Amino acid sequence: LELDIEPKSEPLLLGIDLGGTKILAAVANPHGKVLAREYSATPAQKGPEAVVQAILETAHRTLAKAGITTAHLAAIGVGAAGTSNPHTGIISYSPNLPGWKDIPLRDIVEGELGVKTFVGNDANAAALGELYFGAGRGARNLVYVTLSTGIGGGIIIDGKLYTGKSGAAGEVGHMTIDVNGLRCRCGNIGCWETLASGTALAGEARRRISEGAKTTILARVRGDIKRITAQTVHEAAREGDALASELIAQTGYYAGVGFVNLINIFNPEVIIIGGGLSNMGNMLLEPAMKVVEERTFRAGREAVRLAIAQLGDDSGVLGLAALALQKMNEYT
Amino acid sequence: LELDIEPKSEPLLLGIDLGGTKILAAVANPHGKVLAREYSATPAQKGPEAVVQAILETAHRTLAKAGITTAHLAAIGVGAAGTSNPHTGIISYSPNLPGWKDIPLRDIVEGELGVKTFVGNDANAAALGELYFGAGRGARNLVYVTLSTGIGGGIIIDGKLYTGKSGAAGEVGHMTIDVNGLRCRCGNIGCWETLASGTALAGEARRRISEGAKTTILARVRGDIKRITAQTVHEAAREGDALASELIAQTGYYAGVGFVNLINIFNPEVIIIGGGLSNMGNMLLEPAMKVVEERTFRAGREAVRLAIAQLGDDSGVLGLAALALQKMNEYT
Repeated sequence: LELDIEPKSEPLLLGIDLGGTKILAAVANPHGKVLAREYSATPAQKGPEAVVQAILETAHRTLAKAGITTAHLAAIGVGAAGTSNPHTGIISYSPNLPGWKDIPLRDIVEGELGVKTFVGNDANAAALGELYFGAGRGARNLVYVTLSTGIGGGIIIDGKLYTGKSGAAGEVGHMTIDVNGLRCRCGNIGCWETLASGTALAGEARRRISEGAKTTILARVRGDIKRITAQTVHEAAREGDALASELIAQTGYYAGVGFVNLINIFNPEVIIIGGGLSNMGNMLLEPAMKVVEERTFRAGREAVRLAIAQLGDDSGVLGLAALALQKMNEYT
Repeated sequence: LELDIEPKSEPLLLGIDLGGTKILAAVANPHGKVLAREYSATPAQKGPEAVVQAILETAHRTLAKAGITTAHLAAIGVGAAGTSNPHTGIISYSPNLPGWKDIPLRDIVEGELGVKTFVGNDANAAALGELYFGAGRGARNLVYVTLSTGIGGGIIIDGKLYTGKSGAAGEVGHMTIDVNGLRCRCGNIGCWETLASGTALAGEARRRISEGAKTTILARVRGDIKRITAQTVHEAAREGDALASELIAQTGYYAGVGFVNLINIFNPEVIIIGGGLSNMGNMLLEPAMKVVEERTFRAGREAVRLAIAQLGDDSGVLGLAALALQKMNEYT
């Protein structure tokens, strides 16, 4: 019995990651060990109230699985893709949640569960998760970059998440790197995201195939060019497709251009690379490293290491647990 | 007599700005009031030892003019263009000082004058100067940008200068904004500096004139295209020259593209614009503001103001005095 009680006697954290299709929740200890995880489908189309009920239900189910109650929780971190204000706890907008506008998610969760709650966006939380539990342990200054459908970021300065004046800092995917480039969905021109995201990679594959390039990619999607994703291109490259390899190397090159900017601006100890594209390994990272080697200032280059994110699928929930841990420490 | 003693009884600061052509020094009080300033020519061609002697001589002369001795100084800040490490106090390289390589300037000055000394680069110090004494008063988070021969920067996070892992942070002029652009003197491609600096503006004027553009700029340099500077273009624009106005507006546009990046990354309270180009006023700033209005995220745009630097010619020495003030406070 004592063995069972012991791990529950330390203050525990609940991370809740609200996605457009899934709600993930996990109970973690302050060392980043996940004690229980649960998920449910996001009833996005039923509107905010139904989503909030699903969040609470998933939270309770996760606590039950861990064999604890809310009384064992020190704090809760909850996050969603989109725009949230860490100071007010309001999710002002989330691209995948219809009807979500200025939802005071922090106060709702805190009120319903009776536990101190904090909100943050997904990439910011992932940066903290890597700092506390992953590839950033021991660092004081780092930049976390998620190369995914889009490109998100989180900035750690002096061991703390930097969120800026109104919680919107870290949008590194929306720095212009090609001033004569394409308009980004954010309204800016030639954003890093338009060149080095999964969407950019898939789009470039479609463009090249439309122009007649020879590749096995098309067979993988049974000729339906719209179904091409970054994952399709990766699979083709792994089996030796030349165009796929070339496109991933090009994406890596553009990823490197953005890393150069971040190194020259932040002189960080580490850049942590997460998101789906980080699974492409050296195919993507070697061209990126080459650009970093060739184009950064020496002092910045010598100080930095590039590291792959370590939290994988737990990135969201552990990041939000880390956010809760940091905020709790700030307030006590 | 008491009236004379009173202002000297507060801890005073000495800022020494080591340039390629001039050494500037000033004694300031902790409120940023300059009590005395002196300068001398930099004997750059005579090598590091002669330059160090000139620094010390200028410092002593400034103290004498202020009617004080080193005993009245709380701290000294000394800076040079180029690469310096604030942790070690070593100037590893300065582009305008032949033979300067790994000079331990902090320890030399501290040893010779017997006052706690700190080193920093010019743009970093200017950021602190504006924070303490200028356009950044009251802000917690800001980015200072100097639009000059090149583009430099200084980043203030949570009221403190952010210098990164090895003192090299803030090189905002060397973020790529045109990935298909020109190679920069730093080795990177399409740096902000290649498009929005004084050098870029003058270069663009030369190029357009070589292509046959009609302008009064050429008469101002008596037909010697090599003598065109940003200042020449500014003077022509002020007197109604259409090409000059167009070129300054274009430089402002590119300045704005960089501001967008900084706003999306930092979500700062203020971006402070210093350097010679900031004297061009609305000719430059209106096109920059337009880009910021059109291309930033709403949260970042609503949080930020753009402000012209207020310290003018005292930017260097007051910045270094502010650096000394901040570092002194950190150590006590």
